[in-house]
Amino acid sequence: MSAKVWLVGAGPGDPELLTLKAVRALSEADVVLIDDLVNDAVLEHCPGARIIAVGKRGGCRSTPQAFIHRLMLRYARQGKCVVRLKGGDPCIFGRGGEEAQWLGERGIETELVNGITAGLAGATQCAIPLTLRGVARGVTLVTAHTQDESSLNWQALAQGGTTLVVYMGVAKLCEIREQLLAGAMPAETPVAMIENASLAHQRECRSTLMAMVEDACAFALKSPAILVIGAVAANPSCASDPARQGALFSVAHVGSQHA
Amino acid sequence: MSAKVWLVGAGPGDPELLTLKAVRALSEADVVLIDDLVNDAVLEHCPGARIIAVGKRGGCRSTPQAFIHRLMLRYARQGKCVVRLKGGDPCIFGRGGEEAQWLGERGIETELVNGITAGLAGATQCAIPLTLRGVARGVTLVTAHTQDESSLNWQALAQGGTTLVVYMGVAKLCEIREQLLAGAMPAETPVAMIENASLAHQRECRSTLMAMVEDACAFALKSPAILVIGAVAANPSCASDPARQGALFSVAHVGSQHA
Repeated sequence: MSAKVWLVGAGPGDPELLTLKAVRALSEADVVLIDDLVNDAVLEHCPGARIIAVGKRGGCRSTPQAFIHRLMLRYARQGKCVVRLKGGDPCIFGRGGEEAQWLGERGIETELVNGITAGLAGATQCAIPLTLRGVARGVTLVTAHTQDESSLNWQALAQGGTTLVVYMGVAKLCEIREQLLAGAMPAETPVAMIENASLAHQRECRSTLMAMVEDACAFALKSPAILVIGAVAANPSCASDPARQGALFSVAHVGSQHA
Repeated sequence: MSAKVWLVGAGPGDPELLTLKAVRALSEADVVLIDDLVNDAVLEHCPGARIIAVGKRGGCRSTPQAFIHRLMLRYARQGKCVVRLKGGDPCIFGRGGEEAQWLGERGIETELVNGITAGLAGATQCAIPLTLRGVARGVTLVTAHTQDESSLNWQALAQGGTTLVVYMGVAKLCEIREQLLAGAMPAETPVAMIENASLAHQRECRSTLMAMVEDACAFALKSPAILVIGAVAANPSCASDPARQGALFSVAHVGSQHA
């Protein structure tokens, strides 16, 4: 029996952002354990597989991580080809590392397949390059989720000179603003708040660090959403400001806009 | 005439990490402008297209960016479907933002297609999760390339609490070490140096912040390579150290290892 579990990133939502390797894993799957945030449309690549929903949406009823672990182990020990399908990338806020380690300790071989992470896809769809020569020499992806008790130094991040992309930050906007201001990030720093990144119903709200809490409220911003904080997120309508022009370009494919 | 340029991420090297959308763009292409670091194997998806190599490898003879701009514009104005194929992702150190802006100013529609960035793929192939609950609550991608004169505060990045992934850092190892130590990053912080990320001839060298310069020299580390700096990059052979176990898991698919 070839016990094996694929830990596969399904990308941000747009089913065309699946990789060829993810498609191959799905086509070989006997069992697919699928997260809440994965677009069901990708299941066209595994018509014969048994599909099990194991969502863990923040604040809602959800499947405990330990149960997901045991499910993967049980099917793998039955010799089934198991695909654990996650939103985005399995190693960027996806617990892919944890699951691979847990399975590895029990003798189960795993293979990780990268996916496009939501922060990148959402920004691209809003015509925001996360890095831009002369403007942003790097990008930092962080989660605001409270279940991770590892330390994050927001005040240092405010000073790093990278574009900041925050996942799961909708409920933490006030704290994020307070910490970044305390780190001397300018109050007028541009912010883009992007709901349902890369999906047809993606929505974006452009704001600033100082105004983002009130603007998100007026916009009725809902999870899942990502925040892009930095000069590259400048509002396209501010094109007359030369300092912001670097961030601007036109794309064919943008979600509904809100300035 | 439907003038359009696709700015497409070809991923890190492994041709299976191409997205379905990239495959579609290639299949529609009349002309493909291909960067140095893109694996030629992906050209199987555009058998009828004219292929033009426009590499810009650091330190070598290369195609000026202005010439690439004009080539794209010329073919687009001829009504050709143009694909500009870049390593990794077009908006992460890929100049996708610049090219889209330049073309947009000339009335050419562009569409960006995300790709898997080399830092992510290389780390995954080395069984390093870039984020890990309780260990690394985020990841920072930066380039050490000197052509970007935008400011980067290494000392702040040293204190941010994220995994640090450095692109194009091989020639800058001494400076990077100096800056991060000055930012109070511990000398024993684990470092993985990954050459030819995600390709069959990927090589990895595990070290520490203090020892990385000498270890890279002994290993004969060459570009292209990425550095992963942080607790998640701990050497698997140090599994007896409980502080490092979080970073460890087994994967089916790792490149040749060097501890």
